[in-house]
Amino acid sequence: MSDNFIMNLSKYKLILASKSPRRQMILTEAGFDFEVKVIDIEESYPEVMHASDVAQYLAEKKAKQVPFLKPNEILITADTTVVLNETILGKPEDKEDAFKMISSLSGKMHSVITGVCIKNDHRVISFDDTTFVYFKRLTNKEIDYYIDNFEPYDKAGGYGIQDWIGMIGINNIEGSFFNVMGLPIHKIYAELPALL
Amino acid sequence: MSDNFIMNLSKYKLILASKSPRRQMILTEAGFDFEVKVIDIEESYPEVMHASDVAQYLAEKKAKQVPFLKPNEILITADTTVVLNETILGKPEDKEDAFKMISSLSGKMHSVITGVCIKNDHRVISFDDTTFVYFKRLTNKEIDYYIDNFEPYDKAGGYGIQDWIGMIGINNIEGSFFNVMGLPIHKIYAELPALL
Repeated sequence: MSDNFIMNLSKYKLILASKSPRRQMILTEAGFDFEVKVIDIEESYPEVMHASDVAQYLAEKKAKQVPFLKPNEILITADTTVVLNETILGKPEDKEDAFKMISSLSGKMHSVITGVCIKNDHRVISFDDTTFVYFKRLTNKEIDYYIDNFEPYDKAGGYGIQDWIGMIGINNIEGSFFNVMGLPIHKIYAELPALL
Repeated sequence: MSDNFIMNLSKYKLILASKSPRRQMILTEAGFDFEVKVIDIEESYPEVMHASDVAQYLAEKKAKQVPFLKPNEILITADTTVVLNETILGKPEDKEDAFKMISSLSGKMHSVITGVCIKNDHRVISFDDTTFVYFKRLTNKEIDYYIDNFEPYDKAGGYGIQDWIGMIGINNIEGSFFNVMGLPIHKIYAELPALL
């Protein structure tokens, strides 16, 4: 689609630094051609940092791992955090951890923050986007069923909004749905022209 | 998935009365087995009716087209309306109409209401769900590009939230994303047990 895409990106090579299939799907559906480059960083951050600032910090940290870009290359990095009561929930380590994590979200509102960094060889832009997500009260049976059938061990907060538990358990969101899936695509679309 | 589904539906035959591929996708992803039955009705409603009541009225009207069900059958009908300033936007008839419709949503908030009727041979339950959707200010070029490439003539309001224009143009929603796509699946999941 990039040849008739509304933004003329044909001169550029877009690089998405994420192995998340959900991020790749969003960028594809939004009409972008890109390559995937996996960047591994230690996802650590200063202890004093506010939970709400961590996603953007980690997106910037990933971008710093690629110090040199060719003049036609644009790099996109991202990090998504699930924040409950100013505490970040990571990826669950095992079934017990997943159960505890999802139970803590049950019947409550939490924030999903995706930080994004886009850069070329002479400019860096970073930003984040927050969506508020409201889970209904989940039964233990529903949480067990979800973990056993969907094994959400690669997902921050232990759930995917596009999974079964997101469909049946989330009453309401405030903000961008795609941001919860992993990319605030409306903001990337709005910011990209500044790098062209 | 229905054999290990958390609701025991194995004794029942679920019938979705909708040819919308998006509704079929949502019900499938939520783990339901079902058959599709297409019901054609004239989508007319009393002139005095409030715009916000029309979706549920039309879902009920569709359900009335199937007066007899077998004891093990459950019928699901639905209708989605896009409401701007208390006026319903239908499906665009041609490019000019689509352009006018999407332009009217640009930079504004509108409501998407999906009415649902679920019934078996002795009980009818109907309800609706509302999501508020906020479009950024769209350029004429963006609207043209969308209509030319996505031909949204089968879509109420002239757009799909999961399409390119929804991804790049919608900043914010309040409510359920899947409701905007055509089915408030969280409410269907919550209401179905009353028919079992």
